[in-house]
Amino acid sequence: MDFAGRDIVSTEDLNKEDILHVLDVSAKMEEMVEKERISTLLADKMVAIIFLEPSTRTMLSFVTAANRLSAKVIQVAGAKSSSAAKGESLSDTARTVEGYVDCIVIRQSQIGGARVVADAVDVPVINAGDGSSQHPTQALLDMYTMQKEIGTVEGLTIGMVGDLKFGRTVHSLSYALSHFNPTYHYCSPKELSMPDKIVSDMKDRGIDVKISNSMEDALKADIIYMTRIQRERFDDPAAYEKLKGSYVLTRDILKKAKKDVLIMHPLPRVDEIATDVDELPNAAYFRQAHNGVYLRMALLALVLDRA
Amino acid sequence: MDFAGRDIVSTEDLNKEDILHVLDVSAKMEEMVEKERISTLLADKMVAIIFLEPSTRTMLSFVTAANRLSAKVIQVAGAKSSSAAKGESLSDTARTVEGYVDCIVIRQSQIGGARVVADAVDVPVINAGDGSSQHPTQALLDMYTMQKEIGTVEGLTIGMVGDLKFGRTVHSLSYALSHFNPTYHYCSPKELSMPDKIVSDMKDRGIDVKISNSMEDALKADIIYMTRIQRERFDDPAAYEKLKGSYVLTRDILKKAKKDVLIMHPLPRVDEIATDVDELPNAAYFRQAHNGVYLRMALLALVLDRA
Amino acid sequence: MDFAGRDIVSTEDLNKEDILHVLDVSAKMEEMVEKERISTLLADKMVAIIFLEPSTRTMLSFVTAANRLSAKVIQVAGAKSSSAAKGESLSDTARTVEGYVDCIVIRQSQIGGARVVADAVDVPVINAGDGSSQHPTQALLDMYTMQKEIGTVEGLTIGMVGDLKFGRTVHSLSYALSHFNPTYHYCSPKELSMPDKIVSDMKDRGIDVKISNSMEDALKADIIYMTRIQRERFDDPAAYEKLKGSYVLTRDILKKAKKDVLIMHPLPRVDEIATDVDELPNAAYFRQAHNGVYLRMALLALVLDRA
Repeated sequence: MDFAGRDIVSTEDLNKEDILHVLDVSAKMEEMVEKERISTLLADKMVAIIFLEPSTRTMLSFVTAANRLSAKVIQVAGAKSSSAAKGESLSDTARTVEGYVDCIVIRQSQIGGARVVADAVDVPVINAGDGSSQHPTQALLDMYTMQKEIGTVEGLTIGMVGDLKFGRTVHSLSYALSHFNPTYHYCSPKELSMPDKIVSDMKDRGIDVKISNSMEDALKADIIYMTRIQRERFDDPAAYEKLKGSYVLTRDILKKAKKDVLIMHPLPRVDEIATDVDELPNAAYFRQAHNGVYLRMALLALVLDRA
Repeated sequence: MDFAGRDIVSTEDLNKEDILHVLDVSAKMEEMVEKERISTLLADKMVAIIFLEPSTRTMLSFVTAANRLSAKVIQVAGAKSSSAAKGESLSDTARTVEGYVDCIVIRQSQIGGARVVADAVDVPVINAGDGSSQHPTQALLDMYTMQKEIGTVEGLTIGMVGDLKFGRTVHSLSYALSHFNPTYHYCSPKELSMPDKIVSDMKDRGIDVKISNSMEDALKADIIYMTRIQRERFDDPAAYEKLKGSYVLTRDILKKAKKDVLIMHPLPRVDEIATDVDELPNAAYFRQAHNGVYLRMALLALVLDRA
Repeated sequence: MDFAGRDIVSTEDLNKEDILHVLDVSAKMEEMVEKERISTLLADKMVAIIFLEPSTRTMLSFVTAANRLSAKVIQVAGAKSSSAAKGESLSDTARTVEGYVDCIVIRQSQIGGARVVADAVDVPVINAGDGSSQHPTQALLDMYTMQKEIGTVEGLTIGMVGDLKFGRTVHSLSYALSHFNPTYHYCSPKELSMPDKIVSDMKDRGIDVKISNSMEDALKADIIYMTRIQRERFDDPAAYEKLKGSYVLTRDILKKAKKDVLIMHPLPRVDEIATDVDELPNAAYFRQAHNGVYLRMALLALVLDRA
């Protein structure tokens, strides 16, 4: 459970104690922000936040986290760095940036790219999303949200709805939460179902997994975790149009759910949650996004040995 | 005149007292910068500066203003945020960012978009330009420049020259200055004349408005406010070529103007002001740009309740 | 040797004493970073870092340098600023930004553009690369690396290998090092040979210059300075394919070099140095990149009169 200098590449590297510790430190960060707004905890540290694949929300969340701890930030935001465009390898880029900073946060599109970076450098690396593979900080902020909203992450039933094939958040979350006796309802069109590997990994861990094409099962859960279905995933536009209506959460459909079911979404939302759902007290998705700042503050402080 | 928590979306929301107060606080900010360079007034605040439509000058001016007050800045600079590209609504983006910061500065191309953002969030929002609609901080920095250069904003005669149809700066300025007994000479090719709605609004306020196709009238004013005529506004390139020469300010043409006429321009300038005009003591356009920093410092401090 | 307020546009403007002073201050900056990590030397200063031509490495290095001195940074990173896209001249952009900051760092693609900026404004300007012309901070960090690794910059023999025609780093370096009795082995395909003007300037300064198409000579040097050969430079792709293999540094080829030859490269590297060379103790190129931060800290502190 010593995080100093550690890389955060995949939720599979984190055991139960690790995760609980991260959630605990996140809560302390949130308290600190409430009281002091800005802390000087990392005032002598520099952090590189490198987004070779764009993601406004995750990038701003990390930059906010670093700023609230007074770390100095150097930032790359672009489809590709100019070095990559000139043919530089990811590990060469990493070895250069390593000389500038105390920690590297990286998002890029190559599956396994975060591990390449982590292996190339001595400073700690935080994976902010690599292709359709892993997005560990999203899974952890999801769990922090559950902890805050429900009071525990133990023994929860979760309906994950939408694109379970390409949605890396539901992959990372499945693994991260697997230490806490969950029940999973995977609900998706069959073109976008959860990869077999993940389903069998979950069953191997003794988790009760239900798989379905309809939202009915998911509605029985403690938490409905909605995800966006991307038109581009379908060869046939008509198939997309036909399907997408079945995976939209409305106030009407919610009548079949538990009264206080927690509604989550990694955002951005397109139309898979009707906007009149937003005002329900159990619609947690904007709070969930805001929680990302505390969780990322916790990770930065932990890997830099200041938590 | 209490600005704490207030949105700055349009100059039409500001009354005479509001404007005078903003100019007054801007002067204090300028004094502070002269003395201290960097203040810690907003050291515990975070500001999002989001430019979905690019504008180097306005963006750098806001970032400079925030930095001179020691606010922490999170910044998006791009034709479109990645979230917008994924289909997220402007108000969803705003509600996410709201959780990160104490104030949102936003520029985007949708007319009325700044109001959408302001309505979606609880933190104060400053409009840094929305389409061809409003650019309130430009109008205010223009007035701050008049105040500094002439000593008053009261009773001035202003010739506005160039593209008055699409130029949002002259729209915002017309409204903002309307409280101070101005006389307006609107001078433009007829394809680019001031919108009827604005002309009639000004007349309703009892303002003396002259409309002309030639620069002659404008040259009689206390202030000549030049704007750029964009080639793209003309269907017929020949029409553009024919017209543009008539709206160029040269030393020669200035012989017909008042000796100390104040020459302003929101910049960027292409060739509508000859570069040898730059060295005249009454050529105020670069000083005008620099004044933007003090004005934006004032607004940030005001809406964050620190002025 | 008074640097306060001075522009750093070309290494040709720097005499021997200037250069030694810069190297000396760089060493002090490195010591400071070792001890304090972040200094407050420029805490009341603002620096504009404007990269109209992309360069991740150089940009991050400057931003890191400014941050380690606690300067406030305003940054433009894009193929073109929006103002330039609207037709604004480089000197107008400069005169606007001048009002925001205490120092301008600029990279852009126009040969001589940094001089245009320097002439337009009163604040000091640092050239971060202008077209294929000059890249003075790279030449200085190269020399700082030689000083650190070898103990002196005096009397060194340097083999410069690769694209000597378009490679501005080898141009700037040739001039900067010319004050220190060097011997140059210029080694390139003849399509990419060092410009005649530079060769004759070096000979005029009494420098021993050897020119060759093979790496053999370069391998006898104290330092091998490799550069990237860009495919785009060749009309005939086959010519490129044929040549490029001759200018690749491998462990095998290094057997013919001095045992402790210093291996340098301005980076990014594509495949002109085999990756198994990286682990040799005399492979200095990543350390060289890291040295850029100290050198740029020194220049910022010097021109802002704080060193």
